[in-house]
Amino acid sequence: MAAADIKLADYLFARLRQLGVQSIFGVPGDFNLRLLDFVTPAGLHWVGNCNELNAAYAADGYGRINGLAAVITTFGVGELSALNGIAGAYAEKTPVVHIVGTPPRAVQSARTFVHHTFSDGDFRRFAAMSTHITAAQTNLTDSATAPERIDWILQQALVHSRPVYLEIPHDMNDVLVSAANLNSPIHVPETPRAAHEPKVVAGVLDRVYSAQRPLILVDGESESLNILEQIDTLVQTTGWPTWTSIFGKSLVNEQHPNVYGLYAGAYGDPQAKEYYDGADLVIVLGPHYSDTNTFLFSTIAPSAVRVSFSETTVQIGNDTYHDVSPRSVLSQVLQTLDVSRISRPKSLPSKPKISTADIPSTDLIAQKTFFRLVNPLFREGDIILTETGTASHGGSGFRLPAKSRIFGAVTWLSIGFMLPATLGAALAHRELNASASASAKTDSQVILFIGDGSLQMTAQEISVMIREKLRIVIFILNNDGYTIERVIHGRKQAYNDVPFWRHTQALNYFGADEDHVAGNTFTARTCGELQTVLADERIQRGEGLRIVEVFMGREDVQGVLLDLLNRQVARSSSCPHRLE
Amino acid sequence: MAAADIKLADYLFARLRQLGVQSIFGVPGDFNLRLLDFVTPAGLHWVGNCNELNAAYAADGYGRINGLAAVITTFGVGELSALNGIAGAYAEKTPVVHIVGTPPRAVQSARTFVHHTFSDGDFRRFAAMSTHITAAQTNLTDSATAPERIDWILQQALVHSRPVYLEIPHDMNDVLVSAANLNSPIHVPETPRAAHEPKVVAGVLDRVYSAQRPLILVDGESESLNILEQIDTLVQTTGWPTWTSIFGKSLVNEQHPNVYGLYAGAYGDPQAKEYYDGADLVIVLGPHYSDTNTFLFSTIAPSAVRVSFSETTVQIGNDTYHDVSPRSVLSQVLQTLDVSRISRPKSLPSKPKISTADIPSTDLIAQKTFFRLVNPLFREGDIILTETGTASHGGSGFRLPAKSRIFGAVTWLSIGFMLPATLGAALAHRELNASASASAKTDSQVILFIGDGSLQMTAQEISVMIREKLRIVIFILNNDGYTIERVIHGRKQAYNDVPFWRHTQALNYFGADEDHVAGNTFTARTCGELQTVLADERIQRGEGLRIVEVFMGREDVQGVLLDLLNRQVARSSSCPHRLE
Repeated sequence: MAAADIKLADYLFARLRQLGVQSIFGVPGDFNLRLLDFVTPAGLHWVGNCNELNAAYAADGYGRINGLAAVITTFGVGELSALNGIAGAYAEKTPVVHIVGTPPRAVQSARTFVHHTFSDGDFRRFAAMSTHITAAQTNLTDSATAPERIDWILQQALVHSRPVYLEIPHDMNDVLVSAANLNSPIHVPETPRAAHEPKVVAGVLDRVYSAQRPLILVDGESESLNILEQIDTLVQTTGWPTWTSIFGKSLVNEQHPNVYGLYAGAYGDPQAKEYYDGADLVIVLGPHYSDTNTFLFSTIAPSAVRVSFSETTVQIGNDTYHDVSPRSVLSQVLQTLDVSRISRPKSLPSKPKISTADIPSTDLIAQKTFFRLVNPLFREGDIILTETGTASHGGSGFRLPAKSRIFGAVTWLSIGFMLPATLGAALAHRELNASASASAKTDSQVILFIGDGSLQMTAQEISVMIREKLRIVIFILNNDGYTIERVIHGRKQAYNDVPFWRHTQALNYFGADEDHVAGNTFTARTCGELQTVLADERIQRGEGLRIVEVFMGREDVQGVLLDLLNRQVARSSSCPHRLE
Repeated sequence: MAAADIKLADYLFARLRQLGVQSIFGVPGDFNLRLLDFVTPAGLHWVGNCNELNAAYAADGYGRINGLAAVITTFGVGELSALNGIAGAYAEKTPVVHIVGTPPRAVQSARTFVHHTFSDGDFRRFAAMSTHITAAQTNLTDSATAPERIDWILQQALVHSRPVYLEIPHDMNDVLVSAANLNSPIHVPETPRAAHEPKVVAGVLDRVYSAQRPLILVDGESESLNILEQIDTLVQTTGWPTWTSIFGKSLVNEQHPNVYGLYAGAYGDPQAKEYYDGADLVIVLGPHYSDTNTFLFSTIAPSAVRVSFSETTVQIGNDTYHDVSPRSVLSQVLQTLDVSRISRPKSLPSKPKISTADIPSTDLIAQKTFFRLVNPLFREGDIILTETGTASHGGSGFRLPAKSRIFGAVTWLSIGFMLPATLGAALAHRELNASASASAKTDSQVILFIGDGSLQMTAQEISVMIREKLRIVIFILNNDGYTIERVIHGRKQAYNDVPFWRHTQALNYFGADEDHVAGNTFTARTCGELQTVLADERIQRGEGLRIVEVFMGREDVQGVLLDLLNRQVARSSSCPHRLE
């Protein structure tokens, strides 16, 4: 063993640590057990999840906070269970390294009929399936090329901010590989500065200086473009009215006076829409144009007035520029910007106030009151997760504190995602807080809002939150089934029902300490009861997992969901509507 | 609407009903909601599962008892969650129709960036993924060909006894299609009688008449070959010693005096192995040669002494005959057989006795006692499910009553499968029992044995068992983690731990009636406690779901598992062993 040689599994985990990964998610299985032996010695924390889908979801949640995540599954049975979670990370741009422990090379090359296969000697089916939902794939089959392949696949995850697929045959974990590369960190390559970049910068500035009615729209791909600091400068320097998409929410500080929060197009504030419709410049940062993230495409401004910064292009009106770095262009625009030459638009929409003064404490909790009542709970640095459904719709109206993050219903919309994602996000949050400087440490917590239907998909991960002693508050919005589906179709249909569960027993069933079980489950039916719960010190700054079950009406919805419900009531059942 | 026209969704469900499907599993999602409107009116029972993987597992369990099953998911998020369950049905030959509700045709052809996609206009990725794990695929995009496509895909499921993939765009459900085909039932086509078939029959008979030391091995693919009745005749007519594989267990009546139960090759009864090794004829019915189902290939007799009946071939010694029907050949062999010409082998192994007389009631429950103690609980017609791990290893030694069925760890070995499979099997069992003639009705029940690690994968489906009021007993083998993985590797490693749960709270948490919760949870630590529980009338013939938590040692294993554990103890951690 040369001084510069290292076991392959050690190499991989050293690289993950260099890139800031501190915890790894997954489930043991016979073809990954040897690999798992290396996790703890590498200084990584192993999070055994209850199943692989939950592990993939948790990795996605971790990756969104941490910038990179890894999940380990076993060949066939394990990896296939994780696919939906990996696909979600692809759809919403989280870099997750999906590491699959596969049978030994000799078994594969002999086409042995082992378990976890179709007993036909074919070992490539499952890898083929993952090509459709990952940005890059590799299989470590020889020691000479393994370090470069590992470096390449990790770089691909970062370059594309998307999941990648890495196979490690069981007998490769202990194989020696060169450690030489470990001295050079893995970098995301910079886009070379193109000859036409000054023209692009000038074009953007022209638009900026000539605009009389400008606005800024922060969308969710800004994060993977690594332009959040520039966005903050742009928003503060110009003072221009700023909105976000669902995906972009919390990527810009909503406490800035000119940040209005979510722009919901045809389904939101009419004043905002009026300003937006009359805009002569819409600066779009990190656009992500799915139907859900754009409120049925109603938030997309006409291309003539748009200046967009995307992964591979900058668009100015109808002109598209490739091979420029959006980050570089934006930086130069900000460096060059002469603030005296930009207009200060008048007749701005008023910023909506979130007041709870009008809510009688005897009222039953409803969608229109719940989210306002809970909003004051949030503190700087909190992570707030709102599961697809009424939770994400309601949560999109939160006024967020500085440095907080919110996850909402962007594009993949796989119910069940948010609970394990909360586990992952809370773990990353704790790790980052622990390594932050004393002044940067916050007393923040992680708060999940989830419906009773979604909760049932992945509920067992509550036990891992408990085991990991994570500081989480879960609000279970119990509205007796899939209200989001009732709204879309089947308002009264039994297929939108879910089984009855006793949610107040969750801490007990999932193994919390007896002392903890006693005092950390809450229920609320009226607004007054909810306010009492919210004021409780255990909710405000308690430890461990706390659960609040909140009851709401089966068909109680707001905004775009109310429109859908009303249309469903009005129309005959045989007439499909446009969202479907 | 012509008299012979029918809505597409009605056509599909009419076909499924004709083929004996009475219940459909799945989860609602916006692209399948319109399809779900047709389920109940078609006379089908809708089983809403907690998530799609559980639904696919449940459909597999249902299909193994019923002969065909269907599961409905939604595009992308739903279908991908189900893939591991569909793959398991492929590996172990269960015909499951995976029906996916997809976006409307107009949305797909316009490449609209809708949710549940990667916002790139590509709607074919997920269908491409399913091609690797299904026997056939189709997408219903026009009304003229839809009935033929439906008929074809259902036939493919039955022909191959494997899952198929059926896409229905949202706007196709209400489209009118011709109902004409509904008058002709869907049949599995017969293999034409080949010219060489008499030669094959004569060849088999030659072997049968010349054998001095013959035996019969019933393997699991016998069921999809539709030869179980012929096997019973063969076993009874010849009186020859008969064993089964894991997959074949319960496909032949273990109460016949010449049926020995499981043949475990190098890991089983030495007397059986001695007879087996000296055999001059091994008649193998429905062979399935995975490493696990053959005890590391040690149950596969030399080809020279084998006569095998497989899906596409009959093999006599080293000669392979294609294009003959194994069912037809076997029938003719039985019709022609002159019993006076076959030998009655002597020096047979003695049939193992299952006795509990030697077990002190004060002993802590252990693997070596538990399965013997519980065996007398089983009655004619019971369905017994043993999850991969110590449960399946222990359960493989059960002496089963007539007409019972057992599911074990065959090839796919996806932990978490057995609990939802129990739900599906119990539902099919109840339906078949309800439609049986009065004399054929049984007082049987469905009994699951599952470890605490596996249970956590899919535990939420307990709530569906409760809602469906199914008559099930679950024995939770609580040995504090993944004992099966500890045995293979990582005996003392934390990654084989699982979170602590209070299993006695399951009925309460998952919503059983308060009356039921009180009296239907049991625990046992000693053999005496277990015997008291087993004698309880509520376990013997109670109603609804009953849960028994049984405690066992973390490293308490038997048979092949004990060998593996001992080898692990003996070797250094860096030396991989052969099973991995």
